[in-house]
Amino acid sequence: MIKITQEEKEAVYKTIYNRRDTRNEFKSDDIDDEVIARLLKAAHHSPSVGYMQPWDFIVVKDKKIKQKIKDGFEIAHKEAADMFEGNKKEMYKSLKLEGILEAPIGICVTCDRKRSGSVVIGRTANQEMDLYSVVCAVQTMWLAARAENLGVGWVSIIHHETIREALNIPNEIVPIAYLCIGHVTHFHEKPELEEAGWLPRIPLEDIVHYDLWDIKKAL
Amino acid sequence: MIKITQEEKEAVYKTIYNRRDTRNEFKSDDIDDEVIARLLKAAHHSPSVGYMQPWDFIVVKDKKIKQKIKDGFEIAHKEAADMFEGNKKEMYKSLKLEGILEAPIGICVTCDRKRSGSVVIGRTANQEMDLYSVVCAVQTMWLAARAENLGVGWVSIIHHETIREALNIPNEIVPIAYLCIGHVTHFHEKPELEEAGWLPRIPLEDIVHYDLWDIKKAL
Repeated sequence: MIKITQEEKEAVYKTIYNRRDTRNEFKSDDIDDEVIARLLKAAHHSPSVGYMQPWDFIVVKDKKIKQKIKDGFEIAHKEAADMFEGNKKEMYKSLKLEGILEAPIGICVTCDRKRSGSVVIGRTANQEMDLYSVVCAVQTMWLAARAENLGVGWVSIIHHETIREALNIPNEIVPIAYLCIGHVTHFHEKPELEEAGWLPRIPLEDIVHYDLWDIKKAL
Repeated sequence: MIKITQEEKEAVYKTIYNRRDTRNEFKSDDIDDEVIARLLKAAHHSPSVGYMQPWDFIVVKDKKIKQKIKDGFEIAHKEAADMFEGNKKEMYKSLKLEGILEAPIGICVTCDRKRSGSVVIGRTANQEMDLYSVVCAVQTMWLAARAENLGVGWVSIIHHETIREALNIPNEIVPIAYLCIGHVTHFHEKPELEEAGWLPRIPLEDIVHYDLWDIKKAL
């Protein structure tokens, strides 16, 4: 049996704890194609419901296409600003929330819901399981990127239709994530929204339960 | 800046490639509480939209509660068997798809969609982003568990209502995953559904595109 050693385990935890959502620290340096291939291969080894592997990856380097994504972000970002009230509205507007043009590459990760036919092992009671498989691939890639000392930012303030149009994605394919990836000047010590005082880290004991939802105890 | 070294990077990839969905290889040995706490803490350091941290974790050790989950699996599993046709139906029935009673613990991971109010940074254009954050936490925990040499199996053949009832989860909370976790006799070399000939691994070059959906090339 392949064992993970104590040192290797610590490396995994170090990577998990030092992963950040990068928006403002991208450098324009290219990422080697080998490194991009390693990220994609790692993502492709994520768990998928019924071994469906419903993901596709679109690697975006073209500046005109990035600009279309950026324009789509701007539209959705304006819509969003109007939803916040008072202090939060001003703070929201002041936050840098994406690095679409600055990051050397974008990777769009999608879900092909019909990839292995209509009946899929494990998706029968929960139709959303294929979408969740793709999200697992996103998180795997994110951690692999951190292990490569690359920053990743997930652009979620954009409409699916914008992504589909910019990348020629067929209507039946669901965009799950548009990720900006690149070398960085640094990683923040804490998540930026925690640093900025937007929300605090929740104490772990507040969200851990034992056997039943109603039962809590100190960790 | 905290750098991940070459050796640490290789440890992360080793963990990603050797992670499996465990159903049949659980040993009954207890997992130390410290180890469980490490898994939960790692999951809690996953990315979340708007720093919402919408997850809760219910650690299940009680045998009666596990039996309720198992009974719920059996119901959904019978419903599923009727959906497959011919060869696939017989093969489906012969597969061992969960280790609910064998694994020493279950961890249910849920999503509280109202955790930080109705307007959440990054969820304005895509309301599903909070659910996806919780899935990221599941994958983080899965990789942390593999780094601890523990097996994890995601039980998705069960209805949300069954999980809510068995664990006293309030109606407004969404169950995302019920995970079986434990020490294992071994990890399979390849995903079991690939070994069993259910579906092959898709060649990576078939699912990687460049700039536009229509553009492919060798990796």
